[in-house]
Amino acid sequence: MISFGARRMHPAIVPMIERSAYIGGCDAVAVGKSAELIGAAPVGTMPHALILVMGDTLTDTRAFHEIIDKTVKRVSLIDTFHDEKFETLNVAEAMGKDLYAVRLDTPGSRRGDFLKILQEVRWELDLRGFKDLKLFVSGGLNEEEILRLNPVVDAYGIGTFISNAPVVDFAMDIVEIEGKPLAKRGKWSGAKRVVFCPHCRARKILPLKDKQDLCTCGKAYIDLLNALLSSGKAVQTLPDPRPIREFVLGQLASL
Amino acid sequence: MISFGARRMHPAIVPMIERSAYIGGCDAVAVGKSAELIGAAPVGTMPHALILVMGDTLTDTRAFHEIIDKTVKRVSLIDTFHDEKFETLNVAEAMGKDLYAVRLDTPGSRRGDFLKILQEVRWELDLRGFKDLKLFVSGGLNEEEILRLNPVVDAYGIGTFISNAPVVDFAMDIVEIEGKPLAKRGKWSGAKRVVFCPHCRARKILPLKDKQDLCTCGKAYIDLLNALLSSGKAVQTLPDPRPIREFVLGQLASL
Amino acid sequence: MISFGARRMHPAIVPMIERSAYIGGCDAVAVGKSAELIGAAPVGTMPHALILVMGDTLTDTRAFHEIIDKTVKRVSLIDTFHDEKFETLNVAEAMGKDLYAVRLDTPGSRRGDFLKILQEVRWELDLRGFKDLKLFVSGGLNEEEILRLNPVVDAYGIGTFISNAPVVDFAMDIVEIEGKPLAKRGKWSGAKRVVFCPHCRARKILPLKDKQDLCTCGKAYIDLLNALLSSGKAVQTLPDPRPIREFVLGQLASL
Amino acid sequence: MISFGARRMHPAIVPMIERSAYIGGCDAVAVGKSAELIGAAPVGTMPHALILVMGDTLTDTRAFHEIIDKTVKRVSLIDTFHDEKFETLNVAEAMGKDLYAVRLDTPGSRRGDFLKILQEVRWELDLRGFKDLKLFVSGGLNEEEILRLNPVVDAYGIGTFISNAPVVDFAMDIVEIEGKPLAKRGKWSGAKRVVFCPHCRARKILPLKDKQDLCTCGKAYIDLLNALLSSGKAVQTLPDPRPIREFVLGQLASL
Amino acid sequence: MISFGARRMHPAIVPMIERSAYIGGCDAVAVGKSAELIGAAPVGTMPHALILVMGDTLTDTRAFHEIIDKTVKRVSLIDTFHDEKFETLNVAEAMGKDLYAVRLDTPGSRRGDFLKILQEVRWELDLRGFKDLKLFVSGGLNEEEILRLNPVVDAYGIGTFISNAPVVDFAMDIVEIEGKPLAKRGKWSGAKRVVFCPHCRARKILPLKDKQDLCTCGKAYIDLLNALLSSGKAVQTLPDPRPIREFVLGQLASL
Amino acid sequence: MISFGARRMHPAIVPMIERSAYIGGCDAVAVGKSAELIGAAPVGTMPHALILVMGDTLTDTRAFHEIIDKTVKRVSLIDTFHDEKFETLNVAEAMGKDLYAVRLDTPGSRRGDFLKILQEVRWELDLRGFKDLKLFVSGGLNEEEILRLNPVVDAYGIGTFISNAPVVDFAMDIVEIEGKPLAKRGKWSGAKRVVFCPHCRARKILPLKDKQDLCTCGKAYIDLLNALLSSGKAVQTLPDPRPIREFVLGQLASL
Repeated sequence: MISFGARRMHPAIVPMIERSAYIGGCDAVAVGKSAELIGAAPVGTMPHALILVMGDTLTDTRAFHEIIDKTVKRVSLIDTFHDEKFETLNVAEAMGKDLYAVRLDTPGSRRGDFLKILQEVRWELDLRGFKDLKLFVSGGLNEEEILRLNPVVDAYGIGTFISNAPVVDFAMDIVEIEGKPLAKRGKWSGAKRVVFCPHCRARKILPLKDKQDLCTCGKAYIDLLNALLSSGKAVQTLPDPRPIREFVLGQLASL
Repeated sequence: MISFGARRMHPAIVPMIERSAYIGGCDAVAVGKSAELIGAAPVGTMPHALILVMGDTLTDTRAFHEIIDKTVKRVSLIDTFHDEKFETLNVAEAMGKDLYAVRLDTPGSRRGDFLKILQEVRWELDLRGFKDLKLFVSGGLNEEEILRLNPVVDAYGIGTFISNAPVVDFAMDIVEIEGKPLAKRGKWSGAKRVVFCPHCRARKILPLKDKQDLCTCGKAYIDLLNALLSSGKAVQTLPDPRPIREFVLGQLASL
Repeated sequence: MISFGARRMHPAIVPMIERSAYIGGCDAVAVGKSAELIGAAPVGTMPHALILVMGDTLTDTRAFHEIIDKTVKRVSLIDTFHDEKFETLNVAEAMGKDLYAVRLDTPGSRRGDFLKILQEVRWELDLRGFKDLKLFVSGGLNEEEILRLNPVVDAYGIGTFISNAPVVDFAMDIVEIEGKPLAKRGKWSGAKRVVFCPHCRARKILPLKDKQDLCTCGKAYIDLLNALLSSGKAVQTLPDPRPIREFVLGQLASL
Repeated sequence: MISFGARRMHPAIVPMIERSAYIGGCDAVAVGKSAELIGAAPVGTMPHALILVMGDTLTDTRAFHEIIDKTVKRVSLIDTFHDEKFETLNVAEAMGKDLYAVRLDTPGSRRGDFLKILQEVRWELDLRGFKDLKLFVSGGLNEEEILRLNPVVDAYGIGTFISNAPVVDFAMDIVEIEGKPLAKRGKWSGAKRVVFCPHCRARKILPLKDKQDLCTCGKAYIDLLNALLSSGKAVQTLPDPRPIREFVLGQLASL
Repeated sequence: MISFGARRMHPAIVPMIERSAYIGGCDAVAVGKSAELIGAAPVGTMPHALILVMGDTLTDTRAFHEIIDKTVKRVSLIDTFHDEKFETLNVAEAMGKDLYAVRLDTPGSRRGDFLKILQEVRWELDLRGFKDLKLFVSGGLNEEEILRLNPVVDAYGIGTFISNAPVVDFAMDIVEIEGKPLAKRGKWSGAKRVVFCPHCRARKILPLKDKQDLCTCGKAYIDLLNALLSSGKAVQTLPDPRPIREFVLGQLASL
Repeated sequence: MISFGARRMHPAIVPMIERSAYIGGCDAVAVGKSAELIGAAPVGTMPHALILVMGDTLTDTRAFHEIIDKTVKRVSLIDTFHDEKFETLNVAEAMGKDLYAVRLDTPGSRRGDFLKILQEVRWELDLRGFKDLKLFVSGGLNEEEILRLNPVVDAYGIGTFISNAPVVDFAMDIVEIEGKPLAKRGKWSGAKRVVFCPHCRARKILPLKDKQDLCTCGKAYIDLLNALLSSGKAVQTLPDPRPIREFVLGQLASL
């Protein structure tokens, strides 16, 4: 899965959004600046603009193949002018083993049942021996559609659906004054610890003075609240996105 | 609107079904035998099979134009191989004023928003001056979809949706014996008249002996129950489908 | 279960509809012509008309018993004039062991809770020792109602609900020309085999040239597409309805 | 409409419930003690028990007619043994002008569509000239069903539906102490007036000290809170149920 | 759970309603007369009126503690003037071990999420060492809300929700005359036994003459229909409410 | 209405979000930097932190009144420790005419029916003569709740609900190459004008070459697409937020 949603948010925060997309599970990002922040190469395919200017998908795919560095996998974008089935067969037969994948970005007005289009394309490719050619899809897909398309799709470019999120409605409140618990109505008073057990993944809120160190499963808690800034200075080095992403995916696995 | 549903019912009753479609409001029917029953020429367009065999929509449209009698309007079926937009423009530019309409039978798996496809095709045609070229559509359309497409569509071919109907749950019962009203529980006893006022369109059920002749609106009733067969012989000539259809459409107009 | 829906469809296709009802699971059919097609005797009960003409259910049931061949089971139709409970008791007490069943065709306007009526009738019969008298019911019943009535009903006459079916929306398309796969957008190209495994009941669509003979369960496939007509002549003898019906019921059992 | 619900509530409060039913719009009540409280004669019809003991509806209706005081209208209860249609015709033909109405208390298990049963009975009566015979119905009817039956029914006996009501969730609270407004959180403090304008029917809550006497429509308010008891003694004579009922019906009319 | 709904029904039947509440599972009732009928002491807490008159929850709680018999547990009603959190802490810190519980009767307009208020109060109490102080809640609670609050609440006062019930729509009918089964349409005829198996808890309706004594599980039936009155005199002593309640709760346990 | 949502978005785009909130209809914003961008003074009230530190709402309100510049209106935040009703009366009676408004930020767990709380507070204030004291509310309110509260509320602070918006799913596409219309399937080809009629507020999309200048209402169109940047340089001066806001509110008025 590649993060494709950068152009839909304010440019000032795009690198942060794509870094979050990577941490949340995307395999790569499409914007150069964002990829740099992550420490990886940006990923994408040829755009529709190139095909419109070249005038024809096959001409364009051949030109791309001739000029672009051989380390880049050849992915032909095949929905610009013609029906997906015939254009895919046309390009696959002309390019043969040089073609790694076709990308379908089928416009919404033509996408009656995207799964059926993809199954038909897969059938026609297999019938002609192109069993290794991959299918890459994009275009306003969300998490329900991805689950449905998974049996036939090899890769996704996801934009709108992961470029924003519901606002988290948090608040900052005083809960203790000179060591004495005090909070407005509706807030629990007293300084607190938030502890996490890396073994059984339990989380618990405790009074700060509660020095309890062991989870009910017998293993030691980790404190989740740690100072990152002190007197305006960073007091910890932030981990790279990669280990954070691994921690997130580990949590998903345990759901 | 053309009736296109013949192939989906048992051949023995197809002419009756298409006669009913005509009476119920269709402008024409597609099967020769049915058209004969109605007393009109059958109506249709070139099939996908022709284009598949000719190998190309434009080649096919040109051949059709060369050979078919000039009284038949030229309607090119443009969804076989390519996207509707480009194929329409391709045929329209090649055929010019000789082309009367294009037919879109867009398959379900490509029909994300059929109205948007049709608006886009209309825009592209108008932008290039083909303001008179008609749009004919078909393919599993029902009465809600037709209302939505009406602003941009000129003609329809409708099949599945009008080739069957819910069973009418009627019964045949004895309601009078030797002139004496008698009926089982749940049935109204006594021979009856069903009368209709052609002026205010009221209908009423009366005892057979009730000789009331005038509607509450002051005009005379017509009796709706009339013998068509007597001792196994026809005692009336059936009207042609055309006047029946006009009566039906007149009723629709008064709803 | 007896098929009772013949009068609600066009006479030209009634025998075909009742043959299908029989194949689909009915135990018998009511129309003589249809029964002949199946190779079995038609089945039914006395009609309401007989009771209306005789003037009384008991008089009628006695006359039926006196005249009709002894091989026909005596089933009294008991909802014509009176309430089901009292009429059933009246006929049961007068006919004794000669009566095989009563039929309730309770009209819709009196059928508040048909199950409660049937339970009350069953109670009153059992209370008086008529534990062997069967209950036969009819009148606009569908599959949900039958499941609810099953604990107390012995036989059904089903009409409207099985005399029609939703239209199957199929199409006939060219998928190969001179041995080369070719199909319009939305159709899978190439001639195909449809295979079926009688062991694990799997079905699969394969390219015609794929000679795969074994199912993944290890048993041999059967080809489901076989020519019945060739050059306008029958090349196979059709099986009788009975073995087809057994095949269908076998499939139901494996659901 | 007659109140028939007495037996479904605790006997200790039945007269109060029937008095409320009368005030709320019933034309009469069925229990002697309740009718006395209202100052009117109780109203009802013969019971099923009488017909069961006499053995037959017609015998029973004739006996009733022979013995009961001539001031009581003859209403025959016709659903005990037979179908409503035939029993009604049977009694109507035998009693002629002496019969005022028939009562249908059709049991739930036979009441598929009560309106259709009633329309069929009305048709059969009219067909035979009994246009003046009234239809009285009873048996678990609610306000939606009554609206549906109104076009054909002359009178109703209503029980369960008006013998109980949702609990009104009120509370008694201190709102003023020694003349000073004081109330718990969630209650408005201070003694209050509730005023009503008999002209425009507006209601308003005012502080007790607010001496405002005129409604915004210009007419004088009436105070709705008046002492009925003082030091344990009644200080007002309660109005009879009749004027209260008229006030209620007047309010209904202005909805 | 304490029954608090007495004031919402007619005084004449309050003791019966509260006796039923006790039998149905309440642990105690609030009205003196009702408690007498049950044979137990009435249960309640101080009212809002007392706090309003004393002017302050703590003053009031201290006065209550000073004067009321020591056998009565001290429960302070803490929602009159102030927020639940601060008032609870105020009273708990002043009363210490003398306080048994606090009662929250939070008014509807302040009860956004009652569970969150209760969790917050519990947290603040525990943070300060009042782990034994109980939470008693009241105010329009129903069975769904109780299930949600159970993890944090110790006791409930329930009123409106158990002070009324849907009307049970029963009827009294003649089913046998001079030993012969006879009932109107819709009623099962014949005198009946209703038997119950205390072992497997099955219930069954049998004809009175059916002397069957053993349940299908092999144990003996008990007859559920027994005369309580004969010729106007009691012929059995009624059991106390306590054993009836135990029987009811036993049934609940076996659901 | 004051924009209160700044803290819930990334700090880098907060001034842009608050500028948009102002343009969209807010009367003021709470963050200093944002207010500067708009060209107006920031607006807010005392925070809960101040009351928690001072220990008491009235002490805090008096201190605020003593120290803060007289041009700032006195708004007391009254939901920190106590119930809204009593705290409001307490502050209103102590401050008298010096108090301009009270602010209720009632926490969610106490907000059963916010409208009822506000009506109760308004009643108690009016009963004691504080008819001019304003009610200012905040805390997770959305557009439906505001419509409901409007009859009793004078001002709002709105945060979460206006600090984010659904992603607008736009795309950038080539629609013309060297003056020739060309667009991928699903996009309308050709350069376009978007015109707007300031008189009848119609909007229309036209081919760029369509020089039509008059709306169907007879007035002149305005072109909505204008260059703001050319070769990287601003070619227009942007209007201040105020005239943009007025244009937006004008449009709202014409809905």
